[in-house]
Amino acid sequence: MSNLSQTHCEPCSGNAEPLSPQACQQHLQSLPEWQIVEHDGIMKLTKPFSFRNFADALAFTQRVGELAEQAGHHPVIATQWGSATVTWWSHEIKGLHLNDFILAARTDEVAE
Amino acid sequence: MSNLSQTHCEPCSGNAEPLSPQACQQHLQSLPEWQIVEHDGIMKLTKPFSFRNFADALAFTQRVGELAEQAGHHPVIATQWGSATVTWWSHEIKGLHLNDFILAARTDEVAE
Repeated sequence: MSNLSQTHCEPCSGNAEPLSPQACQQHLQSLPEWQIVEHDGIMKLTKPFSFRNFADALAFTQRVGELAEQAGHHPVIATQWGSATVTWWSHEIKGLHLNDFILAARTDEVAE
Repeated sequence: MSNLSQTHCEPCSGNAEPLSPQACQQHLQSLPEWQIVEHDGIMKLTKPFSFRNFADALAFTQRVGELAEQAGHHPVIATQWGSATVTWWSHEIKGLHLNDFILAARTDEVAE
């Protein structure tokens, strides 16, 4: 369990600054297999999770959804047979906030 | 409720032929807002569904997942705040089978 997952999410307003590339790389070191990708000019944090079948992938999607609802911050979850890919970013700042890294760490926990 | 949704899915082996473009266009006429798109050379049937929030999108994802499990045929469902995009195709034939159109029609029913 990484310390990141235990960190409290901060309120994120549109005035917040996205994390610097250096800070992103630093947080990424404690998040195995997560990658930073750019979609439509927005940096996002993404990871594919593998499962034995569709039902297990869907159950994971449900758990990530509950986590997202608790945090008031929501990813995209692409669910299919044998995998679910979770992608976090902060819509308000069109980029990556510390909250995204915290929720990536918590996503790893609900995958276990 | 379209007749398509009441049609039984056929077993789809790798020997089955993908539907012709003409047959696809014909079935598409009874599926409002569904589009045929090409991803990595594979034709797929996709539609975004809008919801008031994340919880409603996730509940729809769960219903589509149950439908997929019953049919033994599985889409990709991209779930996020306010929407879920469902994409059907037949992996075995790397294209669109009648089953995909049947399940698209049933997806519309569980969205209602």
